Parts: sequence; structure tokens; C-alpha cells
Amino acid sequence: MQRPSFSGIECSMAQSLEVVGEWWSLMIVREVFFGRHRFEEMSDDLGIARNTLTNRLNRLVEEQVLERRAYSASGQRAEYHLTPRGRELFQVLVALLEWGNKWRPLPGGPPTVMVHACGEETTPVLVCDRCHAEVAPENLRLRPGPTHVDDPQHPLVRARNARA
Amino acid sequence: MQRPSFSGIECSMAQSLEVVGEWWSLMIVREVFFGRHRFEEMSDDLGIARNTLTNRLNRLVEEQVLERRAYSASGQRAEYHLTPRGRELFQVLVALLEWGNKWRPLPGGPPTVMVHACGEETTPVLVCDRCHAEVAPENLRLRPGPTHVDDPQHPLVRARNARA
Repeated sequence: MQRPSFSGIECSMAQSLEVVGEWWSLMIVREVFFGRHRFEEMSDDLGIARNTLTNRLNRLVEEQVLERRAYSASGQRAEYHLTPRGRELFQVLVALLEWGNKWRPLPGGPPTVMVHACGEETTPVLVCDRCHAEVAPENLRLRPGPTHVDDPQHPLVRARNARA
Repeated sequence: MQRPSFSGIECSMAQSLEVVGEWWSLMIVREVFFGRHRFEEMSDDLGIARNTLTNRLNRLVEEQVLERRAYSASGQRAEYHLTPRGRELFQVLVALLEWGNKWRPLPGGPPTVMVHACGEETTPVLVCDRCHAEVAPENLRLRPGPTHVDDPQHPLVRARNARA
């Protein structure tokens, strides 16, 4: 399967997938959130090929999602920790976990439930940071930002013009 | 690149990636959210190979994320619409859009901004559906659910026992 690149597509979602859309990348980020910081721990837990894990970890470090910290005296052995950028993938992980719990349930119920600091099992919801009301497809619209593309040769623009 | 399957991994996030973790799948779901329902519209907009688009659409229909509706008299031409299951990927899309806006900004600012029904530009936040306080890595924990795996041969369990 050829790996497409989204980097030319005018959309921040595409930019995100450019970083974490590779097979395994989000599962690896999940591992680190779960407290598994070492190569062997992740490798055991995910059952992933070692060379694939090495490649994905290198890419996540390069993209500043994870950082490598030496933990042996010689500095030869490394742990992987989330950077601020990596920690903010939390919302993506929660959204995927919630969706999977609801729409791909295992027979018998979810393997994992989320518990908030308030003590209750939670199904987190998205709210507007201004008015605090829920954000849903019906009440959210997208507006072109400062870097909205107007190049007439850009595929998005060609398609837009063809429809206009 | 070999396509790994997450279906055996005890995690709803893995279950979600099993459905939408394929290259292009979330970009296609985004297209439908943006009101592009027809094959040609998506193909023009994404610049995706036609056979890849066909494969991804079939898979998304099979997984009940999209549904096919005939729109020509002969029933030969189809539009793709979101199912309830597909609409609930909204939260995943918003999370990816937000993260990309913040961490992979284009020089000059975001290509797209989100505007809530309240009239303000919004950066949606996740809150607990019980107490309405923000949900963050520091205040959320995962608890084993009813289908938590205890099979001693399961890689997750082997790793857990090795650490215990």
C-alpha cells in the first residue's frame, strides 16, 4: 500500500494525520499515556514488530510528540515521554476510546471505562470554550482562516470553483 | 507496509482504529461532514486515486460509518451519507483539527477556524458528562471494564504480570 502524504492538503486535520495517521502511532502514544515508557514494555504490550516500533518511535520523536530520555548510567537506554504536544493528543485518544466503546463494543461490554476525578464513570463531551454549551455537528461551522488557499491550481480550489 | 490488525487488542481505541485507522478514511469522513457526498466531489477534493477511494468508501459502508443512497433515476449513482455511527466521529475530527491548528500551524495561521453557534471562534474542550468539569490526563483514569482480558497468554496480561 502506498503511503499518501496529506501535507499539501489545506486542512489542519490533514496536518495531524500527517503526524499521527501512521499505523501504530496513536497506539504507541496510548502506551506512553498508560505509563509504558520503555521499548520492551511497548513491544510486549502491542505485539508489534521491533523494526516497526523503532521506526514509529523515531518519527514521533522527530515530530516532537515524544522525547527520548536516557535512563541508564551509560545513556544507552532510553525512555520515551510525552512532550506538551504529545500530551495534547489526549483529546484524540479519548474520542477514539469513546467511539470504540460505543460502536465497536466487545460482547459483554467495554474492556476499559473512564473514571473522572469526580468519582463517576464518564463519557466526556465537547463544549465550546467560550459559552460552555455542547459542540455538535449542528452548531459548529468552519470558517476559512488566514491561510485558506486561493491558488487556482490547488485541487481544493479547482473543485470549489467547479461547483461555484 | 504490512497492515497490522488491532482487532485482537483489548482496547476500544484499537477497535476504533480498526475501522478508521486506514489511510484516507478520516479524510473521507471529513468530506462527507463538509457536504461532499459524491464520488467525483471527493475524488477532486482529495486528489485520491480512484481505486483507493472506492476501497475506502466500501469499507466505511461495510462498517456502517457511511450509507449509500441512490440519487439517479436508474439507481446507478450513489451519494454517501453519515450514519449515526459516522456522525459520532465528529469528536475525533474536531480533536484532530484542533491539534493540527495548534501544533502544525501553517505559516500565517490556520487554514480553517471553528465557529460555534454562540457566534464566537471556539477551541472546544472536553468535559465530564457528570460534573461538567474539564477532563484532562491528570484527572482521568482508566478502570478495567467487564471484558478486561485475563487470559494469561494475552500479550497485555503477560506484560502486566511481568511487571507485577
